[in-house]
Amino acid sequence: MQELNDKGKKAREVCIHLLRASSELKDKVLRTSAANLRKNYKIILKENESDVNAAVSGGIKGALIDRLTLTQERINSIAEGLEQIASLDDPVGEVVGMWKRPNGLIIGKKRVPIGVIGIIYEARPNVTADVFGLCIKTGNAAILRGGKEAFRSNNSIVRILRESLSFCGLPADSLQLVEDTSRDSALAMMKLNQYLDILIPRGGAGLIKTVVENSTVPVIETGVGNCHIFIDESADQSMSEKIIVNAKTQRPGVCNAAESLLIHSAVAEKLLPGICKALKSKNVEIRGDERVCKIVPYAVPATENDWYTEFLDLIMSVKIVNDVNDAINHINKYGSKHSESIVTENYSNSQKFLEEVDAAAVYVNASTRFTDGFMFGFGAEIGISTQKLHARGPMGLKELTTSKYVIYGSGQVR
Amino acid sequence: MQELNDKGKKAREVCIHLLRASSELKDKVLRTSAANLRKNYKIILKENESDVNAAVSGGIKGALIDRLTLTQERINSIAEGLEQIASLDDPVGEVVGMWKRPNGLIIGKKRVPIGVIGIIYEARPNVTADVFGLCIKTGNAAILRGGKEAFRSNNSIVRILRESLSFCGLPADSLQLVEDTSRDSALAMMKLNQYLDILIPRGGAGLIKTVVENSTVPVIETGVGNCHIFIDESADQSMSEKIIVNAKTQRPGVCNAAESLLIHSAVAEKLLPGICKALKSKNVEIRGDERVCKIVPYAVPATENDWYTEFLDLIMSVKIVNDVNDAINHINKYGSKHSESIVTENYSNSQKFLEEVDAAAVYVNASTRFTDGFMFGFGAEIGISTQKLHARGPMGLKELTTSKYVIYGSGQVR
Repeated sequence: MQELNDKGKKAREVCIHLLRASSELKDKVLRTSAANLRKNYKIILKENESDVNAAVSGGIKGALIDRLTLTQERINSIAEGLEQIASLDDPVGEVVGMWKRPNGLIIGKKRVPIGVIGIIYEARPNVTADVFGLCIKTGNAAILRGGKEAFRSNNSIVRILRESLSFCGLPADSLQLVEDTSRDSALAMMKLNQYLDILIPRGGAGLIKTVVENSTVPVIETGVGNCHIFIDESADQSMSEKIIVNAKTQRPGVCNAAESLLIHSAVAEKLLPGICKALKSKNVEIRGDERVCKIVPYAVPATENDWYTEFLDLIMSVKIVNDVNDAINHINKYGSKHSESIVTENYSNSQKFLEEVDAAAVYVNASTRFTDGFMFGFGAEIGISTQKLHARGPMGLKELTTSKYVIYGSGQVR
Repeated sequence: MQELNDKGKKAREVCIHLLRASSELKDKVLRTSAANLRKNYKIILKENESDVNAAVSGGIKGALIDRLTLTQERINSIAEGLEQIASLDDPVGEVVGMWKRPNGLIIGKKRVPIGVIGIIYEARPNVTADVFGLCIKTGNAAILRGGKEAFRSNNSIVRILRESLSFCGLPADSLQLVEDTSRDSALAMMKLNQYLDILIPRGGAGLIKTVVENSTVPVIETGVGNCHIFIDESADQSMSEKIIVNAKTQRPGVCNAAESLLIHSAVAEKLLPGICKALKSKNVEIRGDERVCKIVPYAVPATENDWYTEFLDLIMSVKIVNDVNDAINHINKYGSKHSESIVTENYSNSQKFLEEVDAAAVYVNASTRFTDGFMFGFGAEIGISTQKLHARGPMGLKELTTSKYVIYGSGQVR
């Protein structure tokens, strides 16, 4: 596709300028961008209104409209996000190791920008500025392909960000928005190996699946979280309740919310009534296995499919297991390798769970809701990787860099 | 494809056993395997002879036959390779960082096995044992799909390795060889996302290109090296000659051999005759730009395509450039981002070259031939990554691991 080839070529050309840019200059771009977004909020809101009206006329509703809609307050918070990224340390240039070989060669491993990052996302205009901030900070050129419902909003935001780049002396093409929002442009992007170093899909499970199944550009897979809490025999009763209620209900629509509760058979009869009552008081529907349904009268029987499901809703599947091994086997079979937690006072079981559960983040005695770049202390986040290559778990600025070996010689040959 | 699904499922099932295996046990497997390969060398040689005879009858010749052919000496060296891997430190379990958050959560980042690794390779039976050693050491299950010409050799080696696994108490299915060696099985492997965590092609440029273009499983791209040496104005004459001759001729068929020489215009007339004479005495054909052809009478004119070409042969393209910027631009345009070297006594130019050349390994005053896991001190190597995700440059044992966050709480909720 001509547009993507052209944009890919331009992105590749600006890389050297982004590489040469000092941390000071990159931070200046982010702060200038924040100021310009605030100053021009009315322009953005006007374009956003057109997008929202078109979406509503097109029959889109509910959460999708909410995510598409901008307000002055939301634009302020987007601007604050950029300022926050500006205040973080620049990972580019960090030498993570340096050693001397017996032949005198000095080998250093240094963090460098990845190059050109492609992002495919849905109708969420806040992602536009967010990704821009993370990419510029790490010296990467970005090509954005957002959802068509948000095109006017994205376009007005991108125009302001590109002007800010130029104003500060960096190429505007460091950030490019794909104008063709057809399915074809997304597919073309997934094959743009010549120009894209990586492709990150941000959005729902469907989008991510499409990208993983079609992309030949290396993908960072983010998102799906079918997370479990396992209540062991020795678990503290009140801690168990607190953690389960928090992990399930504090924000049920996000990937690190818990979807499934496993409980040791020895304490099920004692603990389940209280836990389920607490969940019910928060309007959580309980889908239990046979033994759970006997203990909890208002539980409905869980189907096999429920154990695999990320509900993203006030629904929790509940299963009684015989011990920590049973719990681990269940999680490794049905889980999505995102975040898993055990509540226990038993040392050996806590160690076993941490060791044998295959997931990006494994907790003892804490809510799964902490799997997040900000909660981990990274200061920013581009997503939560559920794949094993490159980065696993919350991805901060460091994960948007690659490495280069720099080797200092004095005439060495083999 | 049924065979691959079955093997994928089995591989996934053995992961927990490999994870639980102590370093001692894994090393015992490698040492036992080495002993069994030595003990059974006649069986392997007999199967290998059938492979070689069939290949010769089929019209295959030259280097391909050489790579396919095993001898007792080669089997000994394969066994030694396994013993060498056994003697290295186990990267699994290493905690690369641990920190405490303000809420008291203690977050650690730990190296863990990747899971199931697929390898697609050509008719080189030595790769079979090599990959086995690297994967078992790092706790990964391996599914191998080797070239059909080496099937009998591979099969006999794999049988011995699987018996060694069982003998030591680890599942034989930790190593599986795909029996269907048709193109279909390779393609099916490239889509086996359900079971494979990563896919590594090992072989020539054609194989790697096919895998990159067709795989939806995350790929580690290895290999292609169009490497340059840039002789700066201030370069030491004898060091320049020594480095160029070494990088071009010491082993011209490998990816870190130099393919192209760039020389500063101010010293071209002085240095080129001597350098080209030294190359010619090693039977290197010189393909020069217009200015080079005027200085070196036996140079033939280089085509545009020559600048892009990894010759893997005694051919070198030679170009006169105006300064270090020119050299960097040429390399970033035509290079394959593998290994690049500057020969210079100028501090600023050395720093600029290290900073701005986009490659896995960038050298000052050394031969490009050092880009290699052994030369870097990693003790082993599964390949040299030329992509930017996960690993870039020589990949040792650490690069065959991923990470897991282990989080110690005391009841924290959000």
